[in-house]
Amino acid sequence: MHTPRTGLLALTLALCAAGTQAGDIEKAVDYRQGLMNVYVYNVTAMGNMVKGKTPFDPTAFARHAKDLATAARLDLLAGFPEDSINDESDADDKIWLDWDKFQQKNQALRKESARLAEIAKGGDETAMKTQFKKTAKTCKGCHDNFKH
Amino acid sequence: MHTPRTGLLALTLALCAAGTQAGDIEKAVDYRQGLMNVYVYNVTAMGNMVKGKTPFDPTAFARHAKDLATAARLDLLAGFPEDSINDESDADDKIWLDWDKFQQKNQALRKESARLAEIAKGGDETAMKTQFKKTAKTCKGCHDNFKH
Repeated sequence: MHTPRTGLLALTLALCAAGTQAGDIEKAVDYRQGLMNVYVYNVTAMGNMVKGKTPFDPTAFARHAKDLATAARLDLLAGFPEDSINDESDADDKIWLDWDKFQQKNQALRKESARLAEIAKGGDETAMKTQFKKTAKTCKGCHDNFKH
Repeated sequence: MHTPRTGLLALTLALCAAGTQAGDIEKAVDYRQGLMNVYVYNVTAMGNMVKGKTPFDPTAFARHAKDLATAARLDLLAGFPEDSINDESDADDKIWLDWDKFQQKNQALRKESARLAEIAKGGDETAMKTQFKKTAKTCKGCHDNFKH
C-alpha cells in the first residue's frame, strides 16, 4: 500500500542510504589521497637527491625507500570502491573498467619499491638511483593510465 | 663590501631560502595529514564494528588492524619539522616544546597497534575490541595534548 507516509519513509530511507554511500566514498577518497601523499613525500625526497636538487644522503634515501615500500604494502585498492569518484578526485573511470590492469600497476609499485628498499640498505649510490627510476616509472605508469 | 648589487643578491638568496622552507613545510604538512588520513580510515572502520554501527567482520577487522600497525611504523615525526605550522594545520606549538612526550605518544601508537594486529590474527572478538579501545586511546592521548 502506497500512502504519503510510506512514501515519505521510503524517501527518508533512500536519502539515508545515499548519505551513507556518499560518506563512504568521501572516506575512501580521503584515504587514498592520504596514502598518495605518503608516497609523494617519500618519492619527492628521493627524487630530489637523484636529480641533484638536494645532496645525496644514502641514510636518508634508505629511510625514504623503506617507508615507501612499507606504505606500498598498505591496501591502496580498498581506497577505490566501485565508482568512487567525486569532485575532489582525479581518478579515471578506466580504473573500474580495467580493474585487473589497475591491480597489476599496484603490484608493480609494491615489487619495485620493495627492491628499492633492499638495494638502498647496501648504500650503492648508482644502484639506488637506477632502481629509483624503475620505481618512479611505476607511479607514472599508473597515472598515465588511470589519472586525469 | 656592501653594494646595492650584493644587497640584492643577498635579498634574492634569502627569499629563495624562505621559499624553499615554505615549500618544505607544506610538503611535511601534506605528508603528516596524509598519514593521519590513513590512520583515520582504518581506525574508523574498526571503530564502527566495535560500536556496532557495522557488522563485526573479524577478517576485515584484522586487515584494518594490520594496515594501521603498518602505517604506524612509518616515520610520522618526519612530518613535523621544527615549527611546521601553517594555516591548514591543527598542530599545537607544544609538539616542539615537549618533543620527548610527542615521541612517546607516537611510540604508544606503534606498540598498541602492533599488539592489536597480533591479537586480531587470533579472531577473538572480545580481545580485539578490548585492544582496539587501548589503541584508540593512544590517538586521543596524543590529540588531547598536541592538537588544537
